[in-house]
Amino acid sequence: MKFYDDGDALTEPRGFFCSGVHCDVKGKRNGKLDLGIIYSKKPCSVAGVFTTNDVRAAPVRYCESLIQDDKTLCHAIVANSGNANACTGRQGELDTKKMAAEVARHFNIHSKEVLVCSTGRIGEPLPMSRITAGIRDAADDIIQEYDGAKAFQEAILTSDTCTKSCSAKISATVGEITVGGVVKGAGMIEPNMATMLAFLTTDLGASNAELQSILAEAVNKSFNRITIDGDMSTNDTVLLMANGNSGIQFSKESKKFQQNFVEAVEAVCAALAKKCVSDGEKVTKFVRMKVAGAKTPEDAEKVARCVANSLLVKSSWYGSDPNWGRIIDAAGYAKVGMDFDQVDLHYNDIPALIKGEPQVGNKSQWKEIVSGKEFCITLHLNMGKAYGEIWSNDLSEEYVNFNKSE
Amino acid sequence: MKFYDDGDALTEPRGFFCSGVHCDVKGKRNGKLDLGIIYSKKPCSVAGVFTTNDVRAAPVRYCESLIQDDKTLCHAIVANSGNANACTGRQGELDTKKMAAEVARHFNIHSKEVLVCSTGRIGEPLPMSRITAGIRDAADDIIQEYDGAKAFQEAILTSDTCTKSCSAKISATVGEITVGGVVKGAGMIEPNMATMLAFLTTDLGASNAELQSILAEAVNKSFNRITIDGDMSTNDTVLLMANGNSGIQFSKESKKFQQNFVEAVEAVCAALAKKCVSDGEKVTKFVRMKVAGAKTPEDAEKVARCVANSLLVKSSWYGSDPNWGRIIDAAGYAKVGMDFDQVDLHYNDIPALIKGEPQVGNKSQWKEIVSGKEFCITLHLNMGKAYGEIWSNDLSEEYVNFNKSE
Repeated sequence: MKFYDDGDALTEPRGFFCSGVHCDVKGKRNGKLDLGIIYSKKPCSVAGVFTTNDVRAAPVRYCESLIQDDKTLCHAIVANSGNANACTGRQGELDTKKMAAEVARHFNIHSKEVLVCSTGRIGEPLPMSRITAGIRDAADDIIQEYDGAKAFQEAILTSDTCTKSCSAKISATVGEITVGGVVKGAGMIEPNMATMLAFLTTDLGASNAELQSILAEAVNKSFNRITIDGDMSTNDTVLLMANGNSGIQFSKESKKFQQNFVEAVEAVCAALAKKCVSDGEKVTKFVRMKVAGAKTPEDAEKVARCVANSLLVKSSWYGSDPNWGRIIDAAGYAKVGMDFDQVDLHYNDIPALIKGEPQVGNKSQWKEIVSGKEFCITLHLNMGKAYGEIWSNDLSEEYVNFNKSE
Repeated sequence: MKFYDDGDALTEPRGFFCSGVHCDVKGKRNGKLDLGIIYSKKPCSVAGVFTTNDVRAAPVRYCESLIQDDKTLCHAIVANSGNANACTGRQGELDTKKMAAEVARHFNIHSKEVLVCSTGRIGEPLPMSRITAGIRDAADDIIQEYDGAKAFQEAILTSDTCTKSCSAKISATVGEITVGGVVKGAGMIEPNMATMLAFLTTDLGASNAELQSILAEAVNKSFNRITIDGDMSTNDTVLLMANGNSGIQFSKESKKFQQNFVEAVEAVCAALAKKCVSDGEKVTKFVRMKVAGAKTPEDAEKVARCVANSLLVKSSWYGSDPNWGRIIDAAGYAKVGMDFDQVDLHYNDIPALIKGEPQVGNKSQWKEIVSGKEFCITLHLNMGKAYGEIWSNDLSEEYVNFNKSE
């Protein structure tokens, strides 16, 4: 697998086109790109993973209903930022369908072949006249074959500080295929992430069912490490489109190739998820919180999540303070039966606790590690063999300042 | 019931004495009072509610083991701030017993008649020579009958900005009894509260069993509204001592009096819990998050807790932004089956949503309410009849700044 940690990602698989335009969704006339389209002339198989929040935005419900039908093929995705079209009632549903219909009209396809995503403020109706104009411009850019891969990446951002993309290439018996992906995230990720949207494209040919099981598993190992279902926003969506433009068909290739494809999708999702955490609102550090030696994987994840979500722990990371007491306290209220006198704790490879005994001789090394921009903390419970990992970040004053009003 | 929202609280019930001294627990020589004793010459019945964190500090385990024995009587509580004596292994247990033994020696009582509480940094051994000197001074102050009620309140504080106390008096057939209480809290309360210690005294006579059931229920209606077991720190403790100095015996009084006593204990606990939230680290607002119309009380509490713990919601309160979209999003990931089109939302008495429909005409009133120092938000799910309430506060930049290192 060749991996590219940036780039035009979505248009690297053959046959995909992208665009991004400013249509002033927020009515602020700030010139920010805020509407984009991904298009494939060949119809695509498609898979999707969605938020399980009780409150799902109109576009989420729309995409879900289309993707539940295994025969669904799709040509395009339209996405806007600035307005989530969530908690907008019947009007929200009509607006979503109108967005799909407008895209379909420009490309002369069926409106059910268009998926729709929105992200931004909740509870306000979409400004449909401006959205419609934006769709016209964005479709026109694609018809004119403008190179809009970067513009699309920009158009979906909300409070993100940068675009986030990557791609992977793998060889088949003859030729190669590409998987490209982009993500927008920001927000605090968890416990209350702002909307995360991720889009993946590939020129491999595959059925909806094949794509769905591969995507679901990849999301589980990546985006769900930073946010589980229960904590998702009203609009979180991950979509994967496969147009078969490479001439290579998943089902006709070797087990080895199939496994390579699974790994490519997982690598793209993992890289995007990591970019997402690192670009969380006003984040200064990326932290892998690993829990080993738990009785069950669920226990391990529960402990990792308690630590990774603790405001006191996150604040201390921000201050480069290796405060193991706060970590142990947070791990303790996961209530998996942890015995402090049995736990080992490491900052990267440096022991901080061995069987509950502080390794105070290493104190300056912990401090140095926690002062870095990226580090890993491993808590070994010594209760069993299960393992779990959560990717987290620190909490800065700027986060609060940034979020105190919209 | 006569209620006093401040004062010397613990020494208002007859026969209790308090002291608070500086013994330099932290070794910073800052003159802060950091060790205190509550003492009753008459032996007291006693009840206690403790953290259920997997990691319980040595003094918590010590008190728990004493209180499990229904025959336990106690004369004194000794409490220090600055060091939690948590994650301190065998030495921590020995130090706790030594503290009890030192107090016992000065008052000529048995060491098992002394309860011990500690609060402060985790993972460091207690400075026992300074603690021992502090116990000597604090015991001496009581023996000399200095009036140390206020000094005790100060001695238990950590990052609290003020002392917190209250008391209630109720009449019996002949005479009256008093319930006094003090609390130290601060920290963010939840999800990762710093240690909360609460002490209550009363001159009523009652058995351990009577006190235990009354205290457990009162804690459930008060301190557990701001923090449930699962989120408690390593040291959280609520203790109630009853010395019977009033000559009035719980079991011999009328049902009416018994009910009044229950209500007095609940009123004291509720007032202390509220003071605790309002004095959370760098808090500027007190918010009652009420959820009505849930299918079960557990569902109602789950929704209230998701909203009250959301960083995005707390940040918006700090910014006086009545952002109902964030409230609905957080309520949605509680996943109790909420249907947005059925929910009503009120800021105090002003409707913001009726059956999911924004009442935008009231917008300026929401804004005014959320700009206040204390308000109430009611989310009615219209799914059933169950109710739940969580007391919360806002999240300020100063919180993060304050907690980035110790």
